[in-house]
Amino acid sequence: MKKSIFYHAGCPVCVSAEQDIIGLIGEANVEVVNIGEDRARIGEAETAGIQSVPALVTPNGNVLHINFGASLADVKG
Amino acid sequence: MKKSIFYHAGCPVCVSAEQDIIGLIGEANVEVVNIGEDRARIGEAETAGIQSVPALVTPNGNVLHINFGASLADVKG
Repeated sequence: MKKSIFYHAGCPVCVSAEQDIIGLIGEANVEVVNIGEDRARIGEAETAGIQSVPALVTPNGNVLHINFGASLADVKG
Repeated sequence: MKKSIFYHAGCPVCVSAEQDIIGLIGEANVEVVNIGEDRARIGEAETAGIQSVPALVTPNGNVLHINFGASLADVKG
């Protein structure tokens, strides 16, 4: 199965959501990307339709925005 | 494993998120509750800490608010 991708920016809300998502779907099924550190992937997150982090992109490309840590504009700024 | 509980109110955003969540964690691992119809469970959702639907309560009791369909106040109103 194609992996989901979990985008976050290291914020406390993000870390908590990351642990929940990994607990639910399994570490092997999700790639975790910190766009606060790995800034080269911010564009990829935008293209996927992400407006805020934490967010999960499912294997079929749907975006699930989870709780609210930071807007993508804030991460970029 | 204790099941997660997915609360929704039948809104289009909710239905889409429900399909994604079921696809990710498996139908057997999640109880789906429509608090728009099953209004007796609105109080339970509030007690769990839910502020808007769709939302997923994990087996350890954390609330993941997913995207945004409707505030609980709107569902109650």
